Amino acid sequence: MTKVTAQLSVSLDGFYAGPRHDGNGDWITSAESHGFYRVTRWATEAMAWRERQGITGGRRDVNSEIIAESFGAAGAYVMGRRMADGGEVPWGDEPPFRAPVFVVTHRPRERVVRQGGTSFTYVTDGVASAVAQARAAAGGKDVAVAGGGSLVRQVLRAGLLDELELHVAPVVLGTGMRLLDADLGLDEFEAIELTPTRVVPDPQVTHIRYAVTGRAPLTLDSRGR
Amino acid sequence: MTKVTAQLSVSLDGFYAGPRHDGNGDWITSAESHGFYRVTRWATEAMAWRERQGITGGRRDVNSEIIAESFGAAGAYVMGRRMADGGEVPWGDEPPFRAPVFVVTHRPRERVVRQGGTSFTYVTDGVASAVAQARAAAGGKDVAVAGGGSLVRQVLRAGLLDELELHVAPVVLGTGMRLLDADLGLDEFEAIELTPTRVVPDPQVTHIRYAVTGRAPLTLDSRGR
Repeated sequence: MTKVTAQLSVSLDGFYAGPRHDGNGDWITSAESHGFYRVTRWATEAMAWRERQGITGGRRDVNSEIIAESFGAAGAYVMGRRMADGGEVPWGDEPPFRAPVFVVTHRPRERVVRQGGTSFTYVTDGVASAVAQARAAAGGKDVAVAGGGSLVRQVLRAGLLDELELHVAPVVLGTGMRLLDADLGLDEFEAIELTPTRVVPDPQVTHIRYAVTGRAPLTLDSRGR
Repeated sequence: MTKVTAQLSVSLDGFYAGPRHDGNGDWITSAESHGFYRVTRWATEAMAWRERQGITGGRRDVNSEIIAESFGAAGAYVMGRRMADGGEVPWGDEPPFRAPVFVVTHRPRERVVRQGGTSFTYVTDGVASAVAQARAAAGGKDVAVAGGGSLVRQVLRAGLLDELELHVAPVVLGTGMRLLDADLGLDEFEAIELTPTRVVPDPQVTHIRYAVTGRAPLTLDSRGR
């Protein structure tokens, strides 16, 4: 059965990149890129990530297995507009997805078909529609929310996310773009409950997978008495 | 050799309590308490926590072992003033620490000696002094920063923390008091690096222990090429 999943590399303090680059100067020299590079570094050393980028070598380790599993489980992707724009040039003619990608955007654009099975369909009627279109295209496999963090948060907020896997890099950034921030729209006496379903430790990164249970009120208890 | 350690229960989004209670109305009815109760609930069900509070029963499980280990490793504690004030009544005549506690405060106060080995010494000349006094009193065991979160952050910021263990409850609170927030004083191109040394999974909580490596500049990399 198709699940809607998301996985994202974050720092121990929950940032998936440094402070948002404002468009002045090159992104690569920005604090945003420096934070992003740090939290995703573990992946660039993994064979399975490199193979998808057309790069040889890398480690064949548990991190590589987790990346391979993640790509393998996805029958279609949902992606934010900013990530799609930022990836368009670096991903080149054969992007790493090898599956249909549905980009949530306000700007209509013709569907783009790339080599290797990747296509980009631009969806202008919202996140729920993009998830529904991806579900229909996933052929029974999972719908993966590819990112960025803002889109993952929107899908979680809308109650559409079934599974969230965080790859927690052992670093405190102190500032940046945070996956789980105030935009979740929770009131102070309410939370989103999850259930950890898999924890994989590694010196470079801790992988924690959660099933999303859903919103629930916060309650008091007797403190064991 | 004495290490300076801290351990704290936090939500998946890094909060150790709900939004700070401002003093109007009872703390127990506040959003702060509701968040705090949710992230610390796992501990109240553990036998080792209950035993320290004088409550029978509870589970003898891995969570209980981790609590027992944490109490057992501490030769002295450093504590924030707000936590010490908040605990004074509920901890009663025999507080759970059974060791000297050094409270960081601006208000001078006579040392308080309780039953069972717990004493409270009020330190008015700063965090570093409190840590040094606790180190001298720890008898070769560890100095544990008991909390609250604000004091843990100050100790981390000052470069005085050797080990940080987070007990990550599987819940997103969305708002509240965050352990790792902007007060860390990191610039945008700098981070605090850590090394994960132990990960213990449990359905109620994920325990992740880190050795604190220290501040380091954020760098770019070749992305595997």
